[in-house]
Amino acid sequence: MPLGIQQRLHSFADEADARLHKMLAASPQDETKLLSAVQYSLLAPGKRLRPYLVVRCCELVGGSRELAWPVAAAIECVHAFSLVHDDLPAMDNDDLRRGRPTTHKQFDQATAILAGDALVVLAFELIARHVVDAAIASRLVLELSQATGWAGMIGGQAADLEGEKSPPAIDLTRSIHDRKTAALFSAAARMGAIVGRGHEAQIAAVGTYGRHFGHSFQIADDLLDVISTAQELGKTVGKDAHAGKQTYPASVGVQASRTEAAAARDRAIEALSPFGDAAEDLRELARYVVSRVF
Amino acid sequence: MPLGIQQRLHSFADEADARLHKMLAASPQDETKLLSAVQYSLLAPGKRLRPYLVVRCCELVGGSRELAWPVAAAIECVHAFSLVHDDLPAMDNDDLRRGRPTTHKQFDQATAILAGDALVVLAFELIARHVVDAAIASRLVLELSQATGWAGMIGGQAADLEGEKSPPAIDLTRSIHDRKTAALFSAAARMGAIVGRGHEAQIAAVGTYGRHFGHSFQIADDLLDVISTAQELGKTVGKDAHAGKQTYPASVGVQASRTEAAAARDRAIEALSPFGDAAEDLRELARYVVSRVF
Repeated sequence: MPLGIQQRLHSFADEADARLHKMLAASPQDETKLLSAVQYSLLAPGKRLRPYLVVRCCELVGGSRELAWPVAAAIECVHAFSLVHDDLPAMDNDDLRRGRPTTHKQFDQATAILAGDALVVLAFELIARHVVDAAIASRLVLELSQATGWAGMIGGQAADLEGEKSPPAIDLTRSIHDRKTAALFSAAARMGAIVGRGHEAQIAAVGTYGRHFGHSFQIADDLLDVISTAQELGKTVGKDAHAGKQTYPASVGVQASRTEAAAARDRAIEALSPFGDAAEDLRELARYVVSRVF
Repeated sequence: MPLGIQQRLHSFADEADARLHKMLAASPQDETKLLSAVQYSLLAPGKRLRPYLVVRCCELVGGSRELAWPVAAAIECVHAFSLVHDDLPAMDNDDLRRGRPTTHKQFDQATAILAGDALVVLAFELIARHVVDAAIASRLVLELSQATGWAGMIGGQAADLEGEKSPPAIDLTRSIHDRKTAALFSAAARMGAIVGRGHEAQIAAVGTYGRHFGHSFQIADDLLDVISTAQELGKTVGKDAHAGKQTYPASVGVQASRTEAAAARDRAIEALSPFGDAAEDLRELARYVVSRVF
């Protein structure tokens, strides 16, 4: 009997963490507060969902897992960077993340700002250093920078903060989610297929999966902030509503949010149809993420 | 009679600003606070010394100026990013920069953090998008990420903040300057020669120039903080000593700092000897930067 998705994710996270740890150990620097903060932020407990998408989409198009690791690590660096900066007092002001003090609470604000900066730059360094085919490396840098920059995640975070000044509205919420969350999931999937030398149609298909998966993930995240306890979630709950964030539950209510999450899940699964059984774990993943809010 | 270096720089800055402006105008986004903050930070009045090094080192090895612009813009994005984040209250807490309110004073802290983030990511996007030769693009991404990341500028800024806790010492000061300032000047020169398809010896020579130029520039900057008025400098003066920064004047005094700046200038000029008369403006530039503190 095949492993369930939760066991697969757990086992994958162990492998990914070992890779991330090794990568940081190879850093040219002596032990400094900055390096400690980078390690603390990147190696914090996490599901490593974005690296999972990179690695599995690479394998799905016939690439080896070995090719995918530097790209997976780069995506996780960008994700960790976004968490560290989003948690800052001037942004979402969170003290707790994945059950531990946030980076600026564990160290200090200056170190957290610089650790985030170092992580996002490290992402590009990893691609340029380890992806041997230069045409692929350059394309990956373009994909990652677009998904991360002002048109993507960083622009989405800015819109998220601005959105606190407007009443919750579904169109604005969807557009923020698309840039803040779905862009990086889509890039993770696409970059996996690119480094695995997939065809353009395959790259587009997994990108569509990643995009809809990202939406379902963020709607579920919005819902968990409403329906969970802090102990279950490992971070402060009810903060979105308190901050007046644009969220699905605030825009359309809990039940309609569940329906939207399920619809995004179904669109994600539909995008995988060209891959047949080989993509079953990615379908399971989409089901699992949404099942947490039902 | 050829133009003096100050006139050349002035004329170059106009050309560079027009390029930067055009590049930001081509952004896919509507007008947002984030984009305004990015424009405010990147288009702030400045000498554009790093872009000058990129463009002139490209031309010096026989490359066309047109090839160099995206790389020059990328370097200026990284520089602008570093200014915006360094000025934040949690870091150097500066209200004034180039004679204007710093980005977090003009907008707010969250927007300044995100504008810096967007700028550093934009740097990599510009290279990946506009440098057509993928092998060169990938090498440029590696050069820029190394000079910018934890082993370079960002690590130098972290060491600079940590250094406030120790008595001024010349070895520590030199090491901070090397990472915080000289690494990016060296990268600017090297990247110009790389995009211009220079030989390895040429790339190394301009890199050495940029490294020593960067040291002379930073020593002069330390000195200006001691010997200038705010009106002359366009930013708050005397802040280094107040913060207990590791600087040359604090470590070895004003006169010995001048001697060190001149020695770095001479090493920079020496590195240009393979290029003969074609590099005269870069020699003049090195002389000019140091002349401001004599």
